[in-house]
Amino acid sequence: MFGIGRKLTATAFIILLTAVPSHLQAQAKKQVYTNAATLYTSGKMFTTVQPFQRVDTVNYKAMPAAVKRLYTYSAGLAVCFSTNSTSITAKWCVNKPVTYPNLTPIASKGLDLYVHKNGKWQYSGVGRPDKDCSNGVLVENMDNSEKSFTLYLPIYSELSSLEIGIDSGSYIKSRPETKKRVLVYGSSITEGASASRPGLAYPAALSRRLGFDFINAGVSGSAKMEPAVIAMLNDVKADAYILDCIPNSSDAVVKERALNMIKAIQAAHPGKPIIMLNSIVREQSFVDAKVNAMVKAQNMAIDSIAHNLLKIKTKDFYYLDTNGFLGDDHEGSTDGIHPNDLGSFRFVEKLQPLIEPILRKYLR
Amino acid sequence: MFGIGRKLTATAFIILLTAVPSHLQAQAKKQVYTNAATLYTSGKMFTTVQPFQRVDTVNYKAMPAAVKRLYTYSAGLAVCFSTNSTSITAKWCVNKPVTYPNLTPIASKGLDLYVHKNGKWQYSGVGRPDKDCSNGVLVENMDNSEKSFTLYLPIYSELSSLEIGIDSGSYIKSRPETKKRVLVYGSSITEGASASRPGLAYPAALSRRLGFDFINAGVSGSAKMEPAVIAMLNDVKADAYILDCIPNSSDAVVKERALNMIKAIQAAHPGKPIIMLNSIVREQSFVDAKVNAMVKAQNMAIDSIAHNLLKIKTKDFYYLDTNGFLGDDHEGSTDGIHPNDLGSFRFVEKLQPLIEPILRKYLR
Repeated sequence: MFGIGRKLTATAFIILLTAVPSHLQAQAKKQVYTNAATLYTSGKMFTTVQPFQRVDTVNYKAMPAAVKRLYTYSAGLAVCFSTNSTSITAKWCVNKPVTYPNLTPIASKGLDLYVHKNGKWQYSGVGRPDKDCSNGVLVENMDNSEKSFTLYLPIYSELSSLEIGIDSGSYIKSRPETKKRVLVYGSSITEGASASRPGLAYPAALSRRLGFDFINAGVSGSAKMEPAVIAMLNDVKADAYILDCIPNSSDAVVKERALNMIKAIQAAHPGKPIIMLNSIVREQSFVDAKVNAMVKAQNMAIDSIAHNLLKIKTKDFYYLDTNGFLGDDHEGSTDGIHPNDLGSFRFVEKLQPLIEPILRKYLR
Repeated sequence: MFGIGRKLTATAFIILLTAVPSHLQAQAKKQVYTNAATLYTSGKMFTTVQPFQRVDTVNYKAMPAAVKRLYTYSAGLAVCFSTNSTSITAKWCVNKPVTYPNLTPIASKGLDLYVHKNGKWQYSGVGRPDKDCSNGVLVENMDNSEKSFTLYLPIYSELSSLEIGIDSGSYIKSRPETKKRVLVYGSSITEGASASRPGLAYPAALSRRLGFDFINAGVSGSAKMEPAVIAMLNDVKADAYILDCIPNSSDAVVKERALNMIKAIQAAHPGKPIIMLNSIVREQSFVDAKVNAMVKAQNMAIDSIAHNLLKIKTKDFYYLDTNGFLGDDHEGSTDGIHPNDLGSFRFVEKLQPLIEPILRKYLR
């Protein structure tokens, strides 16, 4: 029934089964668990010692501490597998989870499962988090044909362990992908705030729509184009680069670092397209004059740099204006800063037709 | 900067000011606080002893305990005021707040401020909650013309106190409304799960779009049409009744209670329109065969009752099919059950043109 969502403590799970006898049959099948680290994970920047971290930060000592911490979060990672199980369950733990005012716990420390159906990726279930460790049913009562699944991991937590459960007697297989890779470096919006679940972060939505592997290099509040961070990003093997990092930097920082960042990526990855975005207009800026002035200054700074690059016909460089990407009814944000699912959907609807021709040209 | 959202503890607030010197000037103005209970509150089912509760449940002893608890929550309530202050702050406390996997804390225990601008209601700021008691800036750096505001209250918490702060030297006035009232009785979806902030619950969105006062009588998981609850609802003075209560009831409960509920409302409020909705199709039902069968059975049960009423030309009774209200891409839910802001926007876009002609006919 439409309640506030099943809590997935072991106790609540048992209560649920007791209260809903029709579920007993499916759950009577014993679940067998697989360590998700043995399955293919998409969205990885690197192969890492900790399987669900984005970067082995010990290798990049010069990066700021906040950036290092954020790259231990599993934002944008997704476990890819196929199974004929009629139900899929999960057990997972996160390190020192935090509650954020503008994020659901499902987004910050939960799981989000998609199934491939009728040629498209389709939502099929979430893992509702408890405190540090959680377990629960992601989906059940399916037929027993083999299906492909993508399981998106928490966007604002360090995931320390994940096991995927299937019916006893069924099988699970890793589903390696060999897709072209698009690195997206950006702010909390790139990382996934305020998607209601991990699969609704905009790089994940673009992966499903375009069939490329969008690598989420979003770092909430910390996308400040520091040379040490750009050097790390240049070690990531990717086929295209999207830069959505203006929102986190003052106009002075944009002037100081943006051109250096673009030049460094060009030098490290000649022939690969670089797509620079200006900052979306914050909803708060329609009522707060200082926020309004700040966003205008940020965008004037990057406009000037990008237009100079376009004027001199810089090869493989593209600049996109995100003005209007959240719609015009002011309903597309959670908090005046971060797109909600409505704003994010509109953002993707506007961004996709602009980047698709560029990516299709380079990524064949 | 785009971080994960300012936390509004007193400490964090001070840190914020220190870190963002441009904000210091606005905050240098001393704030003067007004008890929000002295201002007009829209969305009220009754005048209550506790100003931010929906029902004095002591008057309705026969209602189930879960329903009583939910009617102490401030879902759908909004404080209406005008001020010429350049900033608006708030201090508020909630009783025993709970964290829900599918809700942001802003939605469950935070505040959501709208300003009337260019003839429309527009988002202007949120109150980011801390633990039991919170305080913070909702909006700042506005001009000092008089503006009308609507402050939506927490949708999944009992609000025990609320004070609204304005610049010292400015004024705040209550803004009483005399709008026609539309009572909406329903499940968690009506109450507001999973809106990212209180103003995005669908009855609140309809209030802004249509200019009526939609009274939120949503009770998460508990909209089961019990005679004691319907008797209480019949004490609410309203001009129209929307019934979105099918999702919480089994087909057997629908068969047992729905017709009695409709007849009871007709008898208590002759000549007032009653608009019955079937259950939206749960996203989970596209992958889970048992959920699919359950929703089909619920909707067959209410279909049969409603079509009989229409067949005998029951006066002032309307029945709406919500099929497709969340779109067809399966992206419109947070957890397979509750619409996210995208699903909710689509729901309102589909519902509004169906109910508007009915309401305009009766509510003049």
